[in-house]
This record gives sequence, structure tokens and C-alpha cells, in this order.
Amino acid sequence: MAIIGVGMTKFGRLQDRSLLDLLADASWSAIKDAHAEDTNFDSIYVGNMSSGKLNNQSAVASALVDRLNLIPASADRIENGPASGGSAIAVGYKTIKSGLSKVILIVGGEKMTHVSSATSTEVVSSMTHPLAEKIHGVTLPSFAAMLARLYSQKYGLTDSQRLQVAIKNHSNGLLNPYAHFQKEISLEKALSSPIIADPLRLYDCCPRSDGAAALILMNAELAESYTNTPVYISGSGQATDLHIVHERPDPLKLNAVKIAAEKTFLQANLTPKDVDIIELHDAFSILEFVQAEQCGFFEDGTYAKALEEGIVARNGELPVNVSGGLKARGHPLGATGVAQACEIVWHLQNKAGPRQVKDPKVGFTCNFGGFGNNVVTHLFSKDVKN
Amino acid sequence: MAIIGVGMTKFGRLQDRSLLDLLADASWSAIKDAHAEDTNFDSIYVGNMSSGKLNNQSAVASALVDRLNLIPASADRIENGPASGGSAIAVGYKTIKSGLSKVILIVGGEKMTHVSSATSTEVVSSMTHPLAEKIHGVTLPSFAAMLARLYSQKYGLTDSQRLQVAIKNHSNGLLNPYAHFQKEISLEKALSSPIIADPLRLYDCCPRSDGAAALILMNAELAESYTNTPVYISGSGQATDLHIVHERPDPLKLNAVKIAAEKTFLQANLTPKDVDIIELHDAFSILEFVQAEQCGFFEDGTYAKALEEGIVARNGELPVNVSGGLKARGHPLGATGVAQACEIVWHLQNKAGPRQVKDPKVGFTCNFGGFGNNVVTHLFSKDVKN
Repeated sequence: MAIIGVGMTKFGRLQDRSLLDLLADASWSAIKDAHAEDTNFDSIYVGNMSSGKLNNQSAVASALVDRLNLIPASADRIENGPASGGSAIAVGYKTIKSGLSKVILIVGGEKMTHVSSATSTEVVSSMTHPLAEKIHGVTLPSFAAMLARLYSQKYGLTDSQRLQVAIKNHSNGLLNPYAHFQKEISLEKALSSPIIADPLRLYDCCPRSDGAAALILMNAELAESYTNTPVYISGSGQATDLHIVHERPDPLKLNAVKIAAEKTFLQANLTPKDVDIIELHDAFSILEFVQAEQCGFFEDGTYAKALEEGIVARNGELPVNVSGGLKARGHPLGATGVAQACEIVWHLQNKAGPRQVKDPKVGFTCNFGGFGNNVVTHLFSKDVKN
Repeated sequence: MAIIGVGMTKFGRLQDRSLLDLLADASWSAIKDAHAEDTNFDSIYVGNMSSGKLNNQSAVASALVDRLNLIPASADRIENGPASGGSAIAVGYKTIKSGLSKVILIVGGEKMTHVSSATSTEVVSSMTHPLAEKIHGVTLPSFAAMLARLYSQKYGLTDSQRLQVAIKNHSNGLLNPYAHFQKEISLEKALSSPIIADPLRLYDCCPRSDGAAALILMNAELAESYTNTPVYISGSGQATDLHIVHERPDPLKLNAVKIAAEKTFLQANLTPKDVDIIELHDAFSILEFVQAEQCGFFEDGTYAKALEEGIVARNGELPVNVSGGLKARGHPLGATGVAQACEIVWHLQNKAGPRQVKDPKVGFTCNFGGFGNNVVTHLFSKDVKN
């Protein structure tokens, strides 16, 4: 099946737009990009984590379908924590495969900067285990810090090496007009930024952002009458892992990442060697290391070398997070999985402007829910229909 | 595709169980009913409206898949207000149809009696339009009251006629061990119960309930090795309508109900005349009237006569809400759509005990989201594979 249009709002602190405004803005951009203004949509899926707690609104999908004049299309919200966007794409993928829908709008979004950081931390923490984790005050940054410590102990990763992710991703974000941050940062600045959860510093962590991203999914035959540059979804994988992080036999092995990626490659009949561009879920710098390795792109413990050698730089052999990643593009929870797909689509269509990667054929995304206990990965191809 | 097992918790005020407990209890019952204890599940879908606001928890699907030891199955929460359960079934239906999953657990649930009725009213109202409706204090009971007035003006429905729904459904609930209320009520008691939103009285309204319901969905071939009494989903339809109720050209015409039902019958190649048993979304008595008519079972304005003649009674030609409906079985928001399916499955399997309807072949459910702006309907058959 094919993606025939994508659209995004700028990510950042968007004080004058409501959640519904953001979802509608991104949707309209995607509909316009697809030249689908007069198309009848069968279904819309909204990826959103916490409209209830953050925006005091439920049934946002029903509200959006009305706002977009897409009635009577079916409309549902798909929630899988910060991987809600990836899950919305996965549900859309299955729906097109079922033959029951031919044209689907998928939109992910979150509006969260209007609440205090204490409130948003509380909301994000509400996906940890209520009795084994949340009650003790564990937050997502603290889990990431523990992962960083384990990884450093095992592979000798230094703070300077780890923060290269932030430097690379900020450098990429500089060229992305949709990014929350469009500025480069120095190693010195990163190393002297405040500790958030030892050893992680401010520049190891993504910001809180508002924003939305959307795409139009169609069955491949129909897509040909809409665009000459369809991008095919060639694999869609999702996997879960133990909820309680300390119960995992080896917390460094993010098994859901590994299994989701394997399923996705198997489905697409592709291997990591076929991939030309990658978007990973670097909510914390260390996650880019572990995901890149668990997905099969690099041997365990070697991602620092890939960074050092420029392999994953924008102009490298296998660029990672050319969008700026969650670190610089920002992380409006439910939007992220869809924004990752938008970035890949733009590169495969040669529409990524000054940050365009040279002639990529296959792109990969990893959207990370919970602390790695519900992960969604996708493969996108320029040529392969699936 | 086939349902091979169903399970429910009792509905009611369940003070000693958390949301996750309820979801797990219902899931285990369904797994046991399906003899699927050793089966690998591909996906689970959780229908739940407001875990964030009511239970301070997000990503409940990820938590549940761990609790049930169904890792690494994919897990997502599907939210469509009080029709979240119906939507979870609809997404599961598409997923099986896609061929990408063979075995799916669908579970709907809500835990809401632990908060004040003011809080739960606020949560339920959060699906109305924020600027055109909610800000003015409109609640779901007030919408239902306006619908009841319009219907009464047009068709001359009296309070006594309207409350026959409550009397019938309480009479049915008496025989349902899972029902929130197991007691009959008299017309006198119903007519003298307090006004909630004029003309609706207490006995026109469903209670707030805790509870969960689950079912196991499989592709039809695989199902044959699990059960001799599979129940097939032969149609799954969903439709949306204008969000703002006063913008609808005729608020009495619940267009989403009509369109969803038509899609469902078309898909199943069945007509309303083929249906033997119906579960409708009687959150308010008047909704049973309008849904029964809009779905095509009765001419507009004639449902009072059907009630009077006993046609929709448990032993009538076309029994409606034999479970007790939302009025007596209760209405734990996200659970309701799945509980409706459970009731139909039990009757089609001849397992409904003292409330068993005689030899039904085809059952129909209507799950009503928003104030009718996102509706999910299903057809279930004993014989027809689809």
C-alpha cells in the first residue's frame, strides 16, 4: 500500500493552537499534499497519548472527523503511549490490507506545553507500572539514566561520546523548518548542561513539544491515480516486552525493539543492509544507541564508533535522525511516530530540501512506547509494493 | 472470522478491583472459555474511554499484555468514547481480515465508580464540543432529554411509554448474573423517580458501573480446531456524524446509527428481517427507541407499539436488550460494546441460561459514541462465515 501525501505542523511551543487545531492543521497539509481534497475517506486514526489528562477532551477522533468534513468516515483514537503515532500507522496498515478501507487519514498529535513540566512528567509517568514503578517516583528520564549507566559499564561509553547524538541531531534540526529547535550545540555546552538524571544531562533529553503530523494511506492501485511518487509501506511490526523494567533478564536488551524490527524486515523481505535512512526514537540520547543496535543496523556496543566515523551523519552511509530526531525536532508524544514517517517519505520523494539525503530507496522508523515495552517499527520503500 | 470464546466480569460497583484487574479478569474468562490458555496471541486491543482521567494510567494495553503473559503480542488501546468497545472489535475485525493476525484478544473495560458522579459526568462530557457545547454546561443526559422531547412532540410518546424500556430491561437484568442491577421495577416507581433532565427520570438513565468484557477473535479456519460452536462476525460497520448536535439538520435522525447499520447489513448480505436478537445502547431509555428505528428494525415512531405488544420482550419475536441493556446490566463505558457482543454470542451458543432466547441465528449490536456522532454496529451469525 502507498502513502500519497504527508503533512506536519511546526513542532514547538505552540500557544495559540489547541490539540484539535494541530490535528486539523497537519491533516489538511497531508490532504493538500495528496491532492485528496475531494476524496471520500473511509477511516481516520488519531494517534494521541493523553488528550484526557492534558487537554480535558475525549473522543478527539470524532471531533476531528467533523472538523475536517470527512463525515461519515469511521474515526478512532489509537493509544500506545509515546508510540501512539506508530500504532495508528500500524492499525491503518492492517485496515488497508483488510480491503475494508481504501483511503485512510492517519494523524498523530499532542498538545502539552501549556501544562507545567511537573504535570506533563506525571502524565508521561502514568505509563510506568503503578505499583512496581510509579509509586516509587520512577520517571522516564530515570529509566533512561539507568540504561545509560548499564550501557556505559558494559561498553565504556563516555559522556562525550553519548552526547554526540545530541550534537548530530541538533545539527540536522537546524535544516528542518518543522523542528522545535533550529540551532547547533557544542560539545562543551552539552557537557556543561544541567544533570537531569545522572549521567543524563539536559542535552541528552528531548523537549516537551506541541505538534501534529499526518499521512494519507491508500491501496496501491488507487494511489497511482493520485501521485507519481508514492511511498510504499513494505513492513509494519509491533512487539511488547515486560512492563516492569527490573523484571527484564537484561534491561540492556530492548527485546520489543528487536522483535518488532525482525517482524518488519521479515514482512518486507528486506534486511538492515537494504536500509538507506533511519528515524529512531531518541527521547534520550542513549536510546539512539540501543535502538540502532537492537534493530540490527550495528553490532552491540559499536554505535559510538558509527557516530565518530560519521556513518550516521546526514551525509554518511546510513543517516540516522536527519529530521533532528526527538532531540531537536521535538517530541509531541502521539505525533512522533507519524512525524518519523513524514521525514522518511520526504527523503524518498527527494523533497527534504537542504537536509535531503542522496537518493535513498528504503527508510526505517522505530517508535518506542513505555520504556520499550511496546515498540512499533516500519519500513518504507520507493519501489517495492506490498 | 469467528469468536471462539467470551468472558465478562460482573458489572457494578467493584471497589476491590483496579481497571487492570477488571481487564485481566474478563480476558482470562474469555481465554478459558476459548480453551486458548496455550495459544500464542498476535494482538490485543483494549477498548477504554478514560483511563487517564479516571485511573491516572496510560498505555493500559501495554500493561495488560504483560499481566496476561501474552508478550510479545502487539497491544493497543482503542478509544471512541462510550463506543470504545465496539471500535476495538471493529479494529480487531479488520486486523483478522488483513491476514496479518490470526488470534486476537479484544477486551473493553472501565473503572469509574470510585470517583464522584460530578467527576465522571465531567469525564463523559469531555467528548462534547468544547466550545459549542461543553462550555455551556451541556451534559449527555441533557442531550438525551432534548431528544426525548423532540421524539415525544413528533410521535406523542408519553412518559409511561418511554419508561417501558426501563421496566423491560430491568426484568431482563434480573436473569443476568453479570448485571449491575438484578431487580424488577414497577411503572409506578419509575414514574415517581427523580427528574434528571426533564422529561428524563432516574429510571430513564443507565448507572455508572465498573466492569470489563472480552472476546477471542480468530480466523475461521483456525477456529474450527478450538470450538464446535463458533460465532461468526458477519458484518462490522462504523459511521460518524456532526459533532455539534444543534448543527444536525434533524437531531431526531441519528444519521451515524443509520449509516453504520446499513454498512453492516450490506457487508453481511443480511437485512434487519434476518435478525433474531438485538443489543442496543440504551444509555437513556429514548435511545433504544431511536436506535431500533434508525437501524431499520421498526418504522419511525412505532417502537412504543413494539414494546406494548411484547415484540421486543425476552420471549417476543425480536428481543431487545435481553442482557438488561445499559439500564440494568450497567455501563462501564469502554466495556459496553464488548459486553453486547458477549450477550449475543451466549444466545447464539444457547448458553444464556434462564434468559436464553429460543434458537436465534443472527444477532445485532449498536454501540453509540459521543451523542451519536460515532457509532459502531455489528452482526453476528451462527452459520454464515465471513
